Amino acid sequence: MNGLGRLIGVGVGPGDPDLLTLKAVQALKSADVVAHFAKAGNASNARVIAGQFLRLGLVELPLLYPVTTETPVSDPKYQSAIQGFFDEAAAAVAAHLQAGRTVAVLSEGDPLFFGSYMHLHVRLMKRYPTDVIPGITAMSGCWSAARLPIVQGDDVLTVLPGTLDEAELTRRLRQNDPTVVMKVGRNLPKLRRALIAADRLSQAIYVEHGTMQNERLMPLMEKEDDSAPYFAIVLVAGRWWKP
Amino acid sequence: MNGLGRLIGVGVGPGDPDLLTLKAVQALKSADVVAHFAKAGNASNARVIAGQFLRLGLVELPLLYPVTTETPVSDPKYQSAIQGFFDEAAAAVAAHLQAGRTVAVLSEGDPLFFGSYMHLHVRLMKRYPTDVIPGITAMSGCWSAARLPIVQGDDVLTVLPGTLDEAELTRRLRQNDPTVVMKVGRNLPKLRRALIAADRLSQAIYVEHGTMQNERLMPLMEKEDDSAPYFAIVLVAGRWWKP
Repeated sequence: MNGLGRLIGVGVGPGDPDLLTLKAVQALKSADVVAHFAKAGNASNARVIAGQFLRLGLVELPLLYPVTTETPVSDPKYQSAIQGFFDEAAAAVAAHLQAGRTVAVLSEGDPLFFGSYMHLHVRLMKRYPTDVIPGITAMSGCWSAARLPIVQGDDVLTVLPGTLDEAELTRRLRQNDPTVVMKVGRNLPKLRRALIAADRLSQAIYVEHGTMQNERLMPLMEKEDDSAPYFAIVLVAGRWWKP
Repeated sequence: MNGLGRLIGVGVGPGDPDLLTLKAVQALKSADVVAHFAKAGNASNARVIAGQFLRLGLVELPLLYPVTTETPVSDPKYQSAIQGFFDEAAAAVAAHLQAGRTVAVLSEGDPLFFGSYMHLHVRLMKRYPTDVIPGITAMSGCWSAARLPIVQGDDVLTVLPGTLDEAELTRRLRQNDPTVVMKVGRNLPKLRRALIAADRLSQAIYVEHGTMQNERLMPLMEKEDDSAPYFAIVLVAGRWWKP
């Protein structure tokens, strides 16, 4: 792969810029091009987190989603639009790699944990050298902010996307594992019903903008269902946890 | 809590020292005391990872386990020995906090994710100011090293300790979630039988010393059952993954 640029997925962590790793900062400083995903019309969250580490004169490649990721991924319209978008994004990145430029792709949290980076990775990994720099996941940021020991000993951790249907959320919550629910957003009322059905609402902690300046953290019982950001997280402690 | 020192759980990540966060490095530089867990007679892994960031003349407080953590945690002998040990460790840390010293507790991976730090935290959190700095988990380090997109879209992630019994491992693996198995060690032959019973052996990747100089990474089908470190991890990809 002589002469080709390197593709690097760079985890920028959950929000606090000080939660970038040394390796991520070095990768951003030496990259030729920095790519970042965002919804059209919005700033990229990952770009906001990592902004202070980008050097002047860096080439930036914004990759703008045509659709919201809050649509169920099983919807065929979503699938067709999003696959076409990732194909185009991969082509735009490949043009730089082909010209020998190193491209760092900013990824909120960890690149391979529910991250958009993986869609570039699977399209490009056989043609270009790649590297993946792990990042602090949003869930680690949230349980640290909440000071909640999430798992110990023989615990099983379950991580659920809030987009699952109510019956499946309930079934999973009834397994009584310490549980993290991602992608809460407008799934909050449904999630609350599932937590009540599984008799676990009192163990649930709601975290919004975890590790950021505007972090909000409270027992879910004290949170209204009015609105929640897509990236809000609910932590459900194990049965042994006594705060 | 005027005049009292601060207790800080510091995640040092999976092994590569460049995977410490900026925040962790700052905390280590400004700590008065650095505590670290190890088995008696062994160097602390976390101490090895973070060694280069400790300043000269720092006070170090080694906390030495009386028993191996590979004993099932359900064993009453284990429970009694380990609880007494954590009580003593907390008392040793508290003596420094009481004298106004900031104590950073090094934690491999993330402090609240299967970490020993939590046992100090729960014993001291009501008496002293605390902070928790999340770290890159071993599992993030491993799936990044393996370039394996672990979860996407509506996937559920299951994280299993290899210490579970074979029937429970099999049952969990049959849910067909992308799965991470921690604490592999001498549980490897049992885990392999469970993966075969769940028809998922071909999706399993074995990772030893992930992100470290001596990292070993291979399909589990190519790994012998002869020996595996306690901290080895097996990643089981989702059904959709085609490498």
